[in-house]
Amino acid sequence: MDFYFDFSSPYAYFASTRIDALAERFGRVCRWRPMLLNPAFQASGNVRLIDQPMKGAYARHDWDRMSRLMQVPYAFPDPFPVSTVAAARAFWWLDSIDPILAKKLGRALFHGYFAEARDISQRDVVAAIGAEQGIDPAQVLGAVDDPVWKAKLRHETEGAIASGVFGAPFIVVDGEAFWGVDRLWMVGEWLERGGW
Amino acid sequence: MDFYFDFSSPYAYFASTRIDALAERFGRVCRWRPMLLNPAFQASGNVRLIDQPMKGAYARHDWDRMSRLMQVPYAFPDPFPVSTVAAARAFWWLDSIDPILAKKLGRALFHGYFAEARDISQRDVVAAIGAEQGIDPAQVLGAVDDPVWKAKLRHETEGAIASGVFGAPFIVVDGEAFWGVDRLWMVGEWLERGGW
Repeated sequence: MDFYFDFSSPYAYFASTRIDALAERFGRVCRWRPMLLNPAFQASGNVRLIDQPMKGAYARHDWDRMSRLMQVPYAFPDPFPVSTVAAARAFWWLDSIDPILAKKLGRALFHGYFAEARDISQRDVVAAIGAEQGIDPAQVLGAVDDPVWKAKLRHETEGAIASGVFGAPFIVVDGEAFWGVDRLWMVGEWLERGGW
Repeated sequence: MDFYFDFSSPYAYFASTRIDALAERFGRVCRWRPMLLNPAFQASGNVRLIDQPMKGAYARHDWDRMSRLMQVPYAFPDPFPVSTVAAARAFWWLDSIDPILAKKLGRALFHGYFAEARDISQRDVVAAIGAEQGIDPAQVLGAVDDPVWKAKLRHETEGAIASGVFGAPFIVVDGEAFWGVDRLWMVGEWLERGGW
């Protein structure tokens, strides 16, 4: 099962705190697949939530109550949204070496941005957060500039869009797609029943 | 608690089959508030799901699986969407006389459109569905043309938009808004805990 997201999505952050436990409960491993939402929004005609009249106000309120409901630390970050190119490239580099550690980095990046107000669009911040997880910051900075990981992120984003991903979090279980943290209960139903 | 919807919304149809039982479980009465989604879409910059690239295909697939999950009869109607002016006016007229019977009519209209392929944009169809529920068809047709119920529907739609309603189903519990049938579980949590 695949977890598509952009590190700048509050709903994806909330989902990231539960998705692995949910997968494990059903003997599954969840692959984290960071991508860039902007191209997906362009392809699907979507607009960023906070730029939408009415829906933007609803979303801001909803993020606050979702953090309380899920008991996940959260503060609306400033700036928001941010470019997550550096964060995603660092993730994909590390994933190629150590997927477990890559998820640990991913969780730390989400937490840094949404709970600690750290601007993860800055490569130095990404490297510092990595260093706190025991990852060599020089290697992180190298990966961010490496054409291999630039291409990987572009390829992942294009592949996600080709698979129908238009928002985040987007969770695909055996080809079945579920959009939104408010649908984790449906993902659980699907895993438990093997579809319906 | 208030249940805002347009009779042409599949997600509202699914919600309509559960919302009263959910309210009753917590000793509440749910008010049905039909409105017109088009003006709400215009106000919020929303676009009809089926007209959106990627999200439209997701929604069509999701309606089918939602009907199976909730065990609610459903077939994607043709034409879709339809004007629900006649259906909503008839509802509001009857609601002023007998709110219980009005919900019965509402359920029959939803069922007629989404389970029986009846075109509820046609006033004769609305009257026929009403007659099957024991409602005088001449009175239904009279209400559809009555300036009082025209004004009521306009007023309800404007009021809903002013309250932040940008889609359907939109459920408001003690001032707290929840958008989407996939959030009925959150509505239940809110009712049970009195907020969080």
